[in-house]
Amino acid sequence: MSRFTFLILCPDQVGIIAKTTAFLHQRKGNIVYLDQYVDPEAQMFFMRLECDGIGLSSDQLRSEFNEALAIPFQMQWRMDSDENLPKMALFVSKYDHCLYDILGRHAAGELQVEIPFIISNHPDLAPVAEQFGIPYHHIPVTKDTKPEAEAAQLALLEAHKIDLIVLARYMQIVSPKLIDRYPNRIINIHHSFLPAFPGAKPYHSAYARGVKIIGATSHYVTEDLDAGPIIEQDTTQVSHIHSVTDFIRKGRDLEKIVLSRAIRQHLEGKTMVYDNKTVIFH
Amino acid sequence: MSRFTFLILCPDQVGIIAKTTAFLHQRKGNIVYLDQYVDPEAQMFFMRLECDGIGLSSDQLRSEFNEALAIPFQMQWRMDSDENLPKMALFVSKYDHCLYDILGRHAAGELQVEIPFIISNHPDLAPVAEQFGIPYHHIPVTKDTKPEAEAAQLALLEAHKIDLIVLARYMQIVSPKLIDRYPNRIINIHHSFLPAFPGAKPYHSAYARGVKIIGATSHYVTEDLDAGPIIEQDTTQVSHIHSVTDFIRKGRDLEKIVLSRAIRQHLEGKTMVYDNKTVIFH
Amino acid sequence: MSRFTFLILCPDQVGIIAKTTAFLHQRKGNIVYLDQYVDPEAQMFFMRLECDGIGLSSDQLRSEFNEALAIPFQMQWRMDSDENLPKMALFVSKYDHCLYDILGRHAAGELQVEIPFIISNHPDLAPVAEQFGIPYHHIPVTKDTKPEAEAAQLALLEAHKIDLIVLARYMQIVSPKLIDRYPNRIINIHHSFLPAFPGAKPYHSAYARGVKIIGATSHYVTEDLDAGPIIEQDTTQVSHIHSVTDFIRKGRDLEKIVLSRAIRQHLEGKTMVYDNKTVIFH
Amino acid sequence: MSRFTFLILCPDQVGIIAKTTAFLHQRKGNIVYLDQYVDPEAQMFFMRLECDGIGLSSDQLRSEFNEALAIPFQMQWRMDSDENLPKMALFVSKYDHCLYDILGRHAAGELQVEIPFIISNHPDLAPVAEQFGIPYHHIPVTKDTKPEAEAAQLALLEAHKIDLIVLARYMQIVSPKLIDRYPNRIINIHHSFLPAFPGAKPYHSAYARGVKIIGATSHYVTEDLDAGPIIEQDTTQVSHIHSVTDFIRKGRDLEKIVLSRAIRQHLEGKTMVYDNKTVIFH
Repeated sequence: MSRFTFLILCPDQVGIIAKTTAFLHQRKGNIVYLDQYVDPEAQMFFMRLECDGIGLSSDQLRSEFNEALAIPFQMQWRMDSDENLPKMALFVSKYDHCLYDILGRHAAGELQVEIPFIISNHPDLAPVAEQFGIPYHHIPVTKDTKPEAEAAQLALLEAHKIDLIVLARYMQIVSPKLIDRYPNRIINIHHSFLPAFPGAKPYHSAYARGVKIIGATSHYVTEDLDAGPIIEQDTTQVSHIHSVTDFIRKGRDLEKIVLSRAIRQHLEGKTMVYDNKTVIFH
Repeated sequence: MSRFTFLILCPDQVGIIAKTTAFLHQRKGNIVYLDQYVDPEAQMFFMRLECDGIGLSSDQLRSEFNEALAIPFQMQWRMDSDENLPKMALFVSKYDHCLYDILGRHAAGELQVEIPFIISNHPDLAPVAEQFGIPYHHIPVTKDTKPEAEAAQLALLEAHKIDLIVLARYMQIVSPKLIDRYPNRIINIHHSFLPAFPGAKPYHSAYARGVKIIGATSHYVTEDLDAGPIIEQDTTQVSHIHSVTDFIRKGRDLEKIVLSRAIRQHLEGKTMVYDNKTVIFH
Repeated sequence: MSRFTFLILCPDQVGIIAKTTAFLHQRKGNIVYLDQYVDPEAQMFFMRLECDGIGLSSDQLRSEFNEALAIPFQMQWRMDSDENLPKMALFVSKYDHCLYDILGRHAAGELQVEIPFIISNHPDLAPVAEQFGIPYHHIPVTKDTKPEAEAAQLALLEAHKIDLIVLARYMQIVSPKLIDRYPNRIINIHHSFLPAFPGAKPYHSAYARGVKIIGATSHYVTEDLDAGPIIEQDTTQVSHIHSVTDFIRKGRDLEKIVLSRAIRQHLEGKTMVYDNKTVIFH
Repeated sequence: MSRFTFLILCPDQVGIIAKTTAFLHQRKGNIVYLDQYVDPEAQMFFMRLECDGIGLSSDQLRSEFNEALAIPFQMQWRMDSDENLPKMALFVSKYDHCLYDILGRHAAGELQVEIPFIISNHPDLAPVAEQFGIPYHHIPVTKDTKPEAEAAQLALLEAHKIDLIVLARYMQIVSPKLIDRYPNRIINIHHSFLPAFPGAKPYHSAYARGVKIIGATSHYVTEDLDAGPIIEQDTTQVSHIHSVTDFIRKGRDLEKIVLSRAIRQHLEGKTMVYDNKTVIFH
């Protein structure tokens, strides 16, 4: 029997937890995880719930849940079963450290995901893809070829039924069309503790400002550059002895960890987005 | 109307969440917080739940809860209402930094607790107590006077109906009688990342070993020295340039923060203990 | 005999270390600490040096050093002896947590400094000052009385020969005259990881942005608001479950630690400023 | 012209810095880095110094330095030039995460070192080595074959003139002969914050104890198991919700970072060892 994971978002009301758990209980479900959160300003209710032991098909359960709970409580909701491995596409440019890290983790069994291909606007990292046996599509992006490039990207994404796109230091702005098509399903890593130092060359700006901490931020991509919902952030101490090169070196470790944590949380269905902010269940 | 906070511990079974939330829902309760955890090895179920809007008295609610849920599910449970401020006694010796920190936080309104008195085996910190207007009881402890000292301590604790005892660098071993009387209600701060460096002079031992991190640990006191359930731990980096004196100075900040976090979590009813480990709800 | 501490800043040239150490060696000095740093972009040389065993008076040593080294190497330099305790003035408004922390640390012997008085634009914290036996000057600041208030502040600072001013959550902008008079000797604590969230209400802005880390920054005050040389920064993790109130509570601990570290580093003569950045020796 | 890096250790005496810097200055050397440290208990002096611009050969400079300074000051010392890339051998068993991390960093240009080969007591990771084009020697170790295995290891190490051995989760105890032959040149990663949880299965022990932090430690290997000089340590927070599997997953990131930092510091000549402790220059 499958394990079903529910993500539920609705206006806060009395009785949601009681009725949802009763619904599952009546169907012989055993709740193995329940966490909920109420946004006190928006009065919105968020819940994540994992349930074992229900003998229904996914479709049947979805249909009953919809009628009994989702409609009456005006829920935005999603139910995943653990039957299928999700599919993740990687977008890269020339920097290889995040790519090595993700592929190394994947090879080491840390990420429960299929990686059907890598897309890059440069040919440089093809050997890395080859090393790990993953198809590499070089799709150059110039001012003139942007529409064709996007079309080529979209065609690949759709042909492979991609669930999640990861921009692993992809140094291009992603097109609004792609963002619309994959809302809250494109994760970017930005190499600063946003909202400080958005845009290009954040390590150089951090060095110029003389900060004593540097950071990295993973977030869902929206049309506002580096302003989407933040998934994970972390920082590390620096000092006057560190050059820009040192910032970059130390930052690489942050980028790798902050990006891989965000990927894992997304893949495990632990992220929800509301009002440009994330709820991250543990 | 009061807010009621439930802490529930019982063998894991199907239906606990559903039945508990239904019970509260039937009594017009609005669940504003629910977090639960199942220990996968012990198969024990832990839940913390806050509920508004129930028009019953504490006693009536306790009685109905007991019959309907606690007995059938074999729950160990506790229900607190937010009507009464808990009472905390401080035990100190000669070190003043944790005492200053707790009293400063208390004066600044950070800790929702009453501090009826401070007990010390030395007279040294009486002026600090006086500065903050808190009674200070000097109860010397020697080998010979130990039983009388304990009796005097217990008399004070009971006379003031103390809920929580905090050993804020109290350099004495607490008697088994006190520990029995206040199970999981005595919090100690130990100045190392336990289980490393239990016992006396951990900073000196850490220095001798050449560690690159030092830490602090707050834990409930049990009869095994420095081996009780850990509530909070934190660490900070040190290097070869730091002397034992530097370790002690840097450690003081850790001790203050780790102890004050543990106190707050206990006071907010977010700690549960099972099998010498804590469950700390967020 | 005194211990002398030198802070030296000059254009980088071959031979500075060799000649400086030879100079001290010839006068029977034993160098107990030497750390240096070259800013590779500005080609500026920074050195901190502690020296024991020299039998000269401060004045005599200063005069000889000036002629032999400072003039030829175009040094900006400072030499302190450990004979006098520096003097620190505290400026506060209504928030008491940093004040309690500094006074608690001072009382516990952590800060080698004299605190002749506290200045505030509000009367609220007078009881805290009284608790610790430190004079409290209530100098209200309004649009109209600003010049008089500044004059009163300056008069107090000069009468007491203050070396360092600490703005311990002083919610006023300090006048340019004061900044000019005490360059790199006014330390402020700002409750964000600058350059993110400068100005008012940074915790509210951080909450609105949905960040996963919050921070605090101590810096020297310059005429550009929250843009002076950064001395210390630290951050802590937050999550969606934390309200603005939680941000403020968690931030208070950061503010206290980041401010007290900056104060200590300044008092120990371990900070240098160049080009709006700090060099912090260990 | 080469950059020369000196590491110097000797009994603390007046004049070492002055005479050493004068020696280099007389030979047209420009000191680009100098950091020193005096162990106040052992009264030992440690210095690291980088120097450009000297027109002598390494041998000539070594010889002059020896006569002028090393002999009179009883120095233990080492001088490296930046002409040759050091050589590092990796020892692994079956865990691949540290191996992927090191090889990924090496491929990404983060580690200035040659990796002539990998040794393992198991065949499992041969494909990883092959992926990165590095020779893999499978040398099984059993009770009976231990002497032959060691001889085979030593033969490889000597044939390739290995400078540094890294035990990247090599689950075997290294022979005293190897340790003797490569003193302070074998780096191990242990998956706990030593001295807590030495030996086997530290994550399981940490889980059983209910700690709230886990850690990793890189250290030079000595004959006392997990008791050699510590190079780097780091920790991360865990909570009751984390299973042993979570500890292992979170710990992997610590292991990778703590090991790679230790490797880099060693390769850059920033580590010194005295009395089973390290001095790590920045």
